[in-house]
Amino acid sequence: MAMTMTQKILASHAGLDSVKSGELIKVKLDLVLGNDITTPVAINEFNKIGSNKVFHKEKVAIVPDHFTPNKDIKSAEQCKCVREFAKDKDIKNYFEIGQMGIEHALIPEKGLAVCGDVIIGADSHTCTYGALGAFSTGVGSTDMAAGMATGEAWFKVPEAIKFVLNGKLSPWVSGKDIILHIIGMIGVDGALYNSMEFTGEGVGELSMDDRFTIANMAIEAGAKNGIFPVDEKTIEYVKEHSNRSYTVYEADEDAEYVKTIEIDLSKIPPTVAFPHIPENTRTIDEVGEIKIDQVVIGSCTNGRIGDLRVAAKVLKGRKVNSNVRTIIFPATQSIYLQAMKEGLLEIFIESGAVVSTPTCGPCLGGHMGILAKGERAVATTNRNFTGRMGHVESEVYLASPAVAAASAVTGKISSPEEVV
Amino acid sequence: MAMTMTQKILASHAGLDSVKSGELIKVKLDLVLGNDITTPVAINEFNKIGSNKVFHKEKVAIVPDHFTPNKDIKSAEQCKCVREFAKDKDIKNYFEIGQMGIEHALIPEKGLAVCGDVIIGADSHTCTYGALGAFSTGVGSTDMAAGMATGEAWFKVPEAIKFVLNGKLSPWVSGKDIILHIIGMIGVDGALYNSMEFTGEGVGELSMDDRFTIANMAIEAGAKNGIFPVDEKTIEYVKEHSNRSYTVYEADEDAEYVKTIEIDLSKIPPTVAFPHIPENTRTIDEVGEIKIDQVVIGSCTNGRIGDLRVAAKVLKGRKVNSNVRTIIFPATQSIYLQAMKEGLLEIFIESGAVVSTPTCGPCLGGHMGILAKGERAVATTNRNFTGRMGHVESEVYLASPAVAAASAVTGKISSPEEVV
Repeated sequence: MAMTMTQKILASHAGLDSVKSGELIKVKLDLVLGNDITTPVAINEFNKIGSNKVFHKEKVAIVPDHFTPNKDIKSAEQCKCVREFAKDKDIKNYFEIGQMGIEHALIPEKGLAVCGDVIIGADSHTCTYGALGAFSTGVGSTDMAAGMATGEAWFKVPEAIKFVLNGKLSPWVSGKDIILHIIGMIGVDGALYNSMEFTGEGVGELSMDDRFTIANMAIEAGAKNGIFPVDEKTIEYVKEHSNRSYTVYEADEDAEYVKTIEIDLSKIPPTVAFPHIPENTRTIDEVGEIKIDQVVIGSCTNGRIGDLRVAAKVLKGRKVNSNVRTIIFPATQSIYLQAMKEGLLEIFIESGAVVSTPTCGPCLGGHMGILAKGERAVATTNRNFTGRMGHVESEVYLASPAVAAASAVTGKISSPEEVV
Repeated sequence: MAMTMTQKILASHAGLDSVKSGELIKVKLDLVLGNDITTPVAINEFNKIGSNKVFHKEKVAIVPDHFTPNKDIKSAEQCKCVREFAKDKDIKNYFEIGQMGIEHALIPEKGLAVCGDVIIGADSHTCTYGALGAFSTGVGSTDMAAGMATGEAWFKVPEAIKFVLNGKLSPWVSGKDIILHIIGMIGVDGALYNSMEFTGEGVGELSMDDRFTIANMAIEAGAKNGIFPVDEKTIEYVKEHSNRSYTVYEADEDAEYVKTIEIDLSKIPPTVAFPHIPENTRTIDEVGEIKIDQVVIGSCTNGRIGDLRVAAKVLKGRKVNSNVRTIIFPATQSIYLQAMKEGLLEIFIESGAVVSTPTCGPCLGGHMGILAKGERAVATTNRNFTGRMGHVESEVYLASPAVAAASAVTGKISSPEEVV
């Protein structure tokens, strides 16, 4: 039976020749992931199972990235809990402050996600690794617990929507604009429990960082996962970061899709999601005059080196507006170091931005840049729900690093072309 | 009548020929300072006074440094309050995120404190500027409010203790060791409401950064202020950072002191203050085996470029212990930039430390490195009271940047000589 790319990966990990959508299957996991918020809950469930060891010491990863460096006593206790668990169970991929970063940037960087993997993580943006041609998806802490104990998880095989990307991106347009454009088109439930399979000649035009951004936000359209075909760029990335063997899966030519959506990349302008839902998108020329108080550049969505390079291109030799707190979060320590070596951090500091340690921080209203009543932020993060970054009467506008950096300079939501 | 250095500054600002200890006087202020914790309270009091403007738009400084970038909604609201006040009153020295740093490092750097000034700040470590030969002291928010409205403050003229510094420091010993040594000797109330006046040939051996550290912690001995004589290094510093005119005051030769304490700098070893009080000092050879979980290098006490250079000298080419979260806080954006240009930040990141935006953060248990139950930190900060950095059952050991960096490498409190 013809299968989508996602279905092929799931079938292979279930030990089955084929699967069909809607089927309930048990699959073997290549990685089980958790963070400082979800892992303590998972540990509690894990202990109830009565298992005294994890299924594989190298196939569990714990990244304390949400409230770190510890925001308060509660977060310190949570981190202590996961640290002690990792030590007790001899978990090899526990990442301490100073060795780490935001989980979804760190996992591919450390070579813990490769093409063909099945990965679950107790964090909704675990779908990021679809950029590498892996099946990865967010789960609850209970599933994380069962995954750590057994190395397996149950799934209902998803149907898929095929997105055929054609053409080339215009200047200053990036992966973030593509995924915001798509979510604006299909809505936050437009791909509910579906795979979003990206194909077409346009994929080759996208950097790996663009693909990570797009796969990362598949969940914002309700998708079970987002996935990209494996090409030379993917293989190059995987070989650079991992020594693990990998498997390349391709969708059958006659695989069935719920629908096929053609996207002409050349027609996508810089796009902004207005409060309070990612589907509330406007193209940059429709934005109007929106004064802002804060700009956040970073997160698991847009805190990679390519994102920082674009932001630096806009900010170089310019000053951020005196009314705008501009906070830049390199997603991992390696990215931070690379950005420093390339002179990007110097550009940021000279422009009047601050550069934070890697942390999820303000994205989820955690810490390091929370909004007061009535304040507005442009953020390269992934969600702009009511109160997401602070006060229930604050507002978050989602945008690319280029738009965010330009907005920092002008003090209102702006196209990079207004600035550079 | 013969006066101490402090008394001369106070007399001149009171318009009096002389003052004597115990006298209540009203003095003119050169700067009134507040932060994001104390200024909202002061604003409330200021509004009760009914004044609609501050006494001088350039002589009030507000630095939101404690819970910034905003830790949570409450801190965001506090920062919004001071931001709006600063805008409304046209306060010239309001420092927004990206332009700022920790107040007591920022004020001298911005040239807002010079020799001979009288400065009050609603923060206990305002005594820092005594390093420049100024009278500066911490006050409550109510005094800050009155100071902002009137440009004046009432003081009881303090008596003084004279500290005569002689000799040269040993390698790896710095201002932090001197002040910890002194506090260990005289106790946390050893200089209660006294001026600590530092004199002697040994002063000339101390860098300005050392002097800032020593003056900063005068309050930890209960002093009203700490103050250094003005020498070539002071003048050079002031001319580099400020265009303001300054006045050099000297103690009369026959000034009266409560007591005189001679300190032989060459005899001071690296010194550590054990929990839970700064007077609980031990020399490095008396420390024993104390395993640690975290190292904090930074704060208004030890976050200056000289401090970071010493830490980098210890950490260069070395890795921090995998059990130690090592968090480095350059005290201001300028120091951050300078440290980056000198390659210090690269050394820190390569060693496995993280580098934070300038913030008071963990020093006061604010955010960015809070301790869980039972955890221990070595910190270059100024207070190690019970629960100061987090849980009531956590511990803080105060030390110099050299000792803190060495301890980060070994995972236990260590002398730099064990490491370098």
